[in-house]
Amino acid sequence: MQIESPPVDRERIIPTAERRGLILVHTGNGKGKSTAAFGLALRAHGRGKAVKIYQFMKVPSARFGEHRMFEKIGLSIEGLGDGFSWKSRDIAHSAQLALDGWAKAEACIRAGEHFLVVLDEIMYPLRYGWVPLGPVLTCLRERPSHVHVVLTGRNAPQELIELADTVTEMTQIKHHFEAGVPAQRGIED
Amino acid sequence: MQIESPPVDRERIIPTAERRGLILVHTGNGKGKSTAAFGLALRAHGRGKAVKIYQFMKVPSARFGEHRMFEKIGLSIEGLGDGFSWKSRDIAHSAQLALDGWAKAEACIRAGEHFLVVLDEIMYPLRYGWVPLGPVLTCLRERPSHVHVVLTGRNAPQELIELADTVTEMTQIKHHFEAGVPAQRGIED
Repeated sequence: MQIESPPVDRERIIPTAERRGLILVHTGNGKGKSTAAFGLALRAHGRGKAVKIYQFMKVPSARFGEHRMFEKIGLSIEGLGDGFSWKSRDIAHSAQLALDGWAKAEACIRAGEHFLVVLDEIMYPLRYGWVPLGPVLTCLRERPSHVHVVLTGRNAPQELIELADTVTEMTQIKHHFEAGVPAQRGIED
Repeated sequence: MQIESPPVDRERIIPTAERRGLILVHTGNGKGKSTAAFGLALRAHGRGKAVKIYQFMKVPSARFGEHRMFEKIGLSIEGLGDGFSWKSRDIAHSAQLALDGWAKAEACIRAGEHFLVVLDEIMYPLRYGWVPLGPVLTCLRERPSHVHVVLTGRNAPQELIELADTVTEMTQIKHHFEAGVPAQRGIED
């Protein structure tokens, strides 16, 4: 039986190592970009760290499973959008909401009071041009050095990938929608 | 400005759609396989569903951020391993633990009392040969049809990928370890 070395646990090898905030990007066409960000948020919150989640494509009143749990444990999650994807066709309004939302998120990142700030689905407003990329990159570069930021969404811009410390691409190998199985409550929302 | 259609929300289009348990696989060499599974668990738990997480490579006493939070919200998470990756070199013992752990997980899946069962890092014991693949596939095929199962870990076996409803590959595009930045508490654990 061939035994392969499992991944090394760096935490234990470099106990006095450098601590600094990271830029993490979850991109690609597969599942798990947002849920992995939520898992990170949960982990950090479990370590007693201040965490804030902004969701650019969710309405403020969203009540999916994760919202119910985050509320229960006191982890702040805020929808910044107008449910554009299935309700609104008022693009100008959606664009303005995204821009207002970014102003909030930027202020939060720059304030440095949070260990982790999640910008969930920010790639959409970036791609649509609702939020300009330049100021986002500037904010990330100028942020207090202890602040971790996770950005999610398909088609992360190349400049953001270059700036990021860690980039993971979630690739869809197979999806149950293709086999005609629809969204399942409790799994997809 | 070119506006691209966001993903369609299937839940809203097919309100009376088929409900059945899914097999979801998170594989690949990137981050987010386990954290995305935790995010799914959190979401389902937030919907009031019974969820169980088994961790094949964590010790029962693991107290990472996610364990602290899951305990707080009453979501059951159980380490089945002996911390093999950095402590034990007693392979026979690790193998036996994994096999005992699988027996527990199999009983849980077959019992059908959980909406979602997570088999975190089960690809390791599968790859090492500690847990035989055949019985795992049989259990998944024979499980009560409402039970969702998420399996995580690198190098998912081809037969498992074929059986699964949804497979996501997390690919590492870039990682901060490569740039000499070590693991960050609250992010990596």
